[in-house]
Amino acid sequence: MKCLVTGAAGFIGSNLTDRLLREGHSVLALDNFSTGFRDTIQSALNHPAFDLREVDLLEPGDWSDAMAGVDAVFHLAANADVRFGLNHPRRDLEQNTLATFNVLEAMREHGVRRIAFSSTGSIYGEPTIFPTPENAPFPIQTSLYGASKLACEGLIQAYCEGYGFQGTIYRFVSILGERYSHGHVFDFYRALKQDPTVLRVLGNGKQRKSYLYVQDCIEAILKGLRDQPGISIYNLGTDEYVEVNDSIRVICEFMGLTPHLDYAGGERGWVGDSPFIFLDCAHIRSTGWKPRLSIREAVVRTLEFFESNPWVFERK
Amino acid sequence: MKCLVTGAAGFIGSNLTDRLLREGHSVLALDNFSTGFRDTIQSALNHPAFDLREVDLLEPGDWSDAMAGVDAVFHLAANADVRFGLNHPRRDLEQNTLATFNVLEAMREHGVRRIAFSSTGSIYGEPTIFPTPENAPFPIQTSLYGASKLACEGLIQAYCEGYGFQGTIYRFVSILGERYSHGHVFDFYRALKQDPTVLRVLGNGKQRKSYLYVQDCIEAILKGLRDQPGISIYNLGTDEYVEVNDSIRVICEFMGLTPHLDYAGGERGWVGDSPFIFLDCAHIRSTGWKPRLSIREAVVRTLEFFESNPWVFERK
Repeated sequence: MKCLVTGAAGFIGSNLTDRLLREGHSVLALDNFSTGFRDTIQSALNHPAFDLREVDLLEPGDWSDAMAGVDAVFHLAANADVRFGLNHPRRDLEQNTLATFNVLEAMREHGVRRIAFSSTGSIYGEPTIFPTPENAPFPIQTSLYGASKLACEGLIQAYCEGYGFQGTIYRFVSILGERYSHGHVFDFYRALKQDPTVLRVLGNGKQRKSYLYVQDCIEAILKGLRDQPGISIYNLGTDEYVEVNDSIRVICEFMGLTPHLDYAGGERGWVGDSPFIFLDCAHIRSTGWKPRLSIREAVVRTLEFFESNPWVFERK
Repeated sequence: MKCLVTGAAGFIGSNLTDRLLREGHSVLALDNFSTGFRDTIQSALNHPAFDLREVDLLEPGDWSDAMAGVDAVFHLAANADVRFGLNHPRRDLEQNTLATFNVLEAMREHGVRRIAFSSTGSIYGEPTIFPTPENAPFPIQTSLYGASKLACEGLIQAYCEGYGFQGTIYRFVSILGERYSHGHVFDFYRALKQDPTVLRVLGNGKQRKSYLYVQDCIEAILKGLRDQPGISIYNLGTDEYVEVNDSIRVICEFMGLTPHLDYAGGERGWVGDSPFIFLDCAHIRSTGWKPRLSIREAVVRTLEFFESNPWVFERK
């Protein structure tokens, strides 16, 4: 099939792109390279079924024609910076909500109906049920990032109901693995490379988080695609969680370090940080999908990637 | 207190404005008069504590200075047209989501923290629990209108968490009463005035809907205002619902007519119409609030308003 991938130069988008190409699909990639990087799509660029357009999703006049003849849209482009959202509230609105609206409108214009969308477990705010199912009590948003993804989900759902779109929404936990370059495993590894004697930790280190290996994530995305009108919603994670302290332990063991841990204190790493993310993934498991790597294995796989790809840190 | 009311020339906004002025507050009214009308604020215009600015909320440079010194914002401006949303998907995004973002940013710029927001029972999509509580299972949006209000709610919640805003979200059922000029009681009355022999009804007439009298709605809005950081969410309705056929009966009795009823058929009046809206209002009742009028009394009050205010129909 002819696939359009937004954010194709990003962490998940580039891994998905490689997988789609390996399976014989063609990929039209859209990226503005604001957070994506050319390194990640180097091999794809040599593939005859790959095409790249460097465009801004906020300027649909520049790219909406790309939708012509597309069978499925994988809309992964986003501002994924949860933590500093309060410093620039317009960014989540524009890069997430408005960009998604533009993607949906371009699809409608060209008769494209099938969309896979990367949402987030952050959409549950601070849930009261663990593991948290997709039909958890109507959540209250605690971050601009979560609010913007909620807005995107609502739009996609309304397009499914009103225009016969075939939508799948995936609510991710944090994703780890090859090309990961954003988040606390990244931050800890880089900090310890710079100073192996001390590690500053936001919050009290007892925040409980879930992670999923990127190839498991991509497998789930492909499993969940709809081929009929309507909406499907899947949490994507493993059936476990770890404390931030647990991942620090894995990282320190891997690096052979015993730094002093300097905690900022408090239950949350920052305003809007969720102290406990643990999703009920029974729905995606009902498709036959299951993750191949545990959280610990995914952290180690990520660290191995860092060791052999120092460019990830140089480009920042 | 100094109140800023957006959509102050609208149905609910103008009634709220009159109430605030009666209680001794000052009101700065913003309206673009796209659906609001000067007739509704005629008495307010003569009040010394009332000021009006005709502005477009999408152009915050024209009005954000109005936030200076404001104690509370009542953000009622919206595109309230649920039914024809699919004909102009950009309208809900702009008039609801983007306008709300602009209001929040103008508040932040001027240190204003307290906001009351008119959301909607449509946000529950097609709920599975009746009466539907505020913490109902995470809903799936079935209309662009609902999706846009969901986006607004998420933004307001994130501003409460991130910037210490004091927010109250009211999820309205359909509101009736003086100055009502939009919705099926309006449509039925007007149609029967034009042709008393036949009444076309969308769907099968068995759609179950809830209504609330506008003065009861305003009483609840004032009861629910927060005076500390955080978010409160209240469903606003009566503890009853009626079938569309019930309200047709009340209208026909009031008008002394026995038209032939011509049903379009189907459970829904249109794509995205919810066949059953019935909200659990225990939360707002816990504040001591209760509605003074039943749904039937609210319909009759609305019909009496029509009889003595034929201009409502002339201006369309």
